[in-house]
Amino acid sequence: MARAYNFSAGPAALPLEVLQDAQQELVDYKGTGMSVMEMSHRGKDYDAIHQEAVATFKELCGLGDEWSVVFIQGGASMQFAMIPMNFLGAGQTADYVNSGTWGNKALKEAKKVAALRGASVNIAADCQKDIPTRQPDSFSWTKGAAYAHICTNETISGAEMKVIPEVEAPLIGDMSSDILSCERDYSKFSMFYAGAQKNLGPSGMAVVAIRSDFAEKGPDSLPTMLQYRTYTKENSLYNTPPTWGIYIFGETMKWVKRMGKENLFRLNAEKAKKIYYVIDSSDFWTGTALKEYRSNMNVTWRIKGGDETLEAKFLAEAKAAGMSSLKGHRSVGGLRASIYNAFPMNGVDALVAFMKDFEKKNG
Amino acid sequence: MARAYNFSAGPAALPLEVLQDAQQELVDYKGTGMSVMEMSHRGKDYDAIHQEAVATFKELCGLGDEWSVVFIQGGASMQFAMIPMNFLGAGQTADYVNSGTWGNKALKEAKKVAALRGASVNIAADCQKDIPTRQPDSFSWTKGAAYAHICTNETISGAEMKVIPEVEAPLIGDMSSDILSCERDYSKFSMFYAGAQKNLGPSGMAVVAIRSDFAEKGPDSLPTMLQYRTYTKENSLYNTPPTWGIYIFGETMKWVKRMGKENLFRLNAEKAKKIYYVIDSSDFWTGTALKEYRSNMNVTWRIKGGDETLEAKFLAEAKAAGMSSLKGHRSVGGLRASIYNAFPMNGVDALVAFMKDFEKKNG
Repeated sequence: MARAYNFSAGPAALPLEVLQDAQQELVDYKGTGMSVMEMSHRGKDYDAIHQEAVATFKELCGLGDEWSVVFIQGGASMQFAMIPMNFLGAGQTADYVNSGTWGNKALKEAKKVAALRGASVNIAADCQKDIPTRQPDSFSWTKGAAYAHICTNETISGAEMKVIPEVEAPLIGDMSSDILSCERDYSKFSMFYAGAQKNLGPSGMAVVAIRSDFAEKGPDSLPTMLQYRTYTKENSLYNTPPTWGIYIFGETMKWVKRMGKENLFRLNAEKAKKIYYVIDSSDFWTGTALKEYRSNMNVTWRIKGGDETLEAKFLAEAKAAGMSSLKGHRSVGGLRASIYNAFPMNGVDALVAFMKDFEKKNG
Repeated sequence: MARAYNFSAGPAALPLEVLQDAQQELVDYKGTGMSVMEMSHRGKDYDAIHQEAVATFKELCGLGDEWSVVFIQGGASMQFAMIPMNFLGAGQTADYVNSGTWGNKALKEAKKVAALRGASVNIAADCQKDIPTRQPDSFSWTKGAAYAHICTNETISGAEMKVIPEVEAPLIGDMSSDILSCERDYSKFSMFYAGAQKNLGPSGMAVVAIRSDFAEKGPDSLPTMLQYRTYTKENSLYNTPPTWGIYIFGETMKWVKRMGKENLFRLNAEKAKKIYYVIDSSDFWTGTALKEYRSNMNVTWRIKGGDETLEAKFLAEAKAAGMSSLKGHRSVGGLRASIYNAFPMNGVDALVAFMKDFEKKNG
């Protein structure tokens, strides 16, 4: 079987070992005579999968008993709505950092909720439209804000927050594209979350880590499924959770543990460095993000400062060479290589060799 | 491999063929070099899966161009919230039929939304607490109601609505546990939906069929992810959909088509009839639901009118004989056999033989 080099921004490459194990167990999970997809979410076989997935993730992030880890359907986009619905009360202000497409999407949903409730949203920093793309370097936080929201890695612009800002208000982080990809002090947050389909597993849920007392702050007049306490109090089992997704997530977390997270973090930095090294080696390429904010997960760049004909040629030839989904998002253009935890080093080596060859032929 | 007879109410048994095909394709989907779980939801390989799933379901339900079929994460429980949020405006009244646990859950969420909005909920019929369990036989509908909501099959009580009531208001049906299990005129509805994990596929989404003009009635001040138009206008691709679940759903719909839906409907009736025949054959057993409302999907019954010791013995011995998840829900007690489309006839035959033997030994 020829395995594709899949540079997709999400859903994205999963660890081959995880896929192979899931394949083996798909019809008959460990002699139960049924697939994980067929198991009652109230039964003991599924319960063991669920508990282990939560425990492994908590261990990897260094989270203590004060934290709940819950699975909420709807991806990060549903979190954009749930966060202000739960935490932005009438007369309150929430701080949002507009660092790019995703920071802005979160901000927009908060504004919708604020408009209905008579609450306010303060933009603590705004660099969404800056090219080269970046993360902000200064912030104007609101005294007594209900919470502050940041997006630690902008998947589209390829700009990553290298230092988590110090904020007085409860800090909420969208880490959809860089969770568990680098050393990070998660204790700075009151809540952090990630759509699963980049670094954690298949699409179909957000993994949400939230301090249990913070989860209680939401009004209980909200619909049941939109309150965080519904998930924290019932261990994500108020209704049927996305059992298959949680299973693959758990297997992926066990893979991270087997690999060793420090080892994986080091490999992530090395993978990114190899591509940035080629980008910086000649004027043929230009990085889309400012150097100090370059993402290790989503490498974004242009050819000859934005030669679309040459970029299209690059994409077509890369695709023919087995490298897919290298097209940058239309809002920043150019090229993007998403290289999450599960993306293999040999795929990066193949891209780097291809880039050098392409430059030689077209430079 | 010994395949379990899995009588779980959901997640539930899937067609073995679907599981085997999914297993074969799990690591490498049709030579793409990647798993369906790894594919970009914007790429052409996934797009074909998505389009075919929608088209096959529409064909099976006989839905024309005026209908949208969308995938919304959060299961039926999220629909309980989204329906009133979208369709129950200030000063309006919605009619709800409280036919059991699930009808009541939908009703409760509508009341929450109504309380915040200054709207009303009318209980058009109430038989939630009746034992034997049943569906209502008369209704008091509100003139000019915003919509009317019914649950066509109560999974827990085992009572199914055999005739869809005639209602003037737009009719919304929760069909989580009996969608595509019997002949039904779906054109009577403005919207119907089902949590996927019973008759359609794995957990993690609701399949929602909605008339496109009805979807537009929701206020656009709602969070983006909570408006139906977000899904109908972007073919469920506003954000990353639960791609694996949609793939398995599509494969299951193709299986229904291969089996022939009329054939499947006939088999469903036959499977249920075999179990009810044993229940009615002696006083040892009592059906939980009134005969005229007996569900063909969830067969519920008691031993000796509710002998819990004997029921526990039945469950333990059934489990040892390879029949799992036969325990009734605590709210009605006793036993339950959930026998959705994918549950095989030989599993029903095994249960029937086991019941006869158990009665002989314990009667």
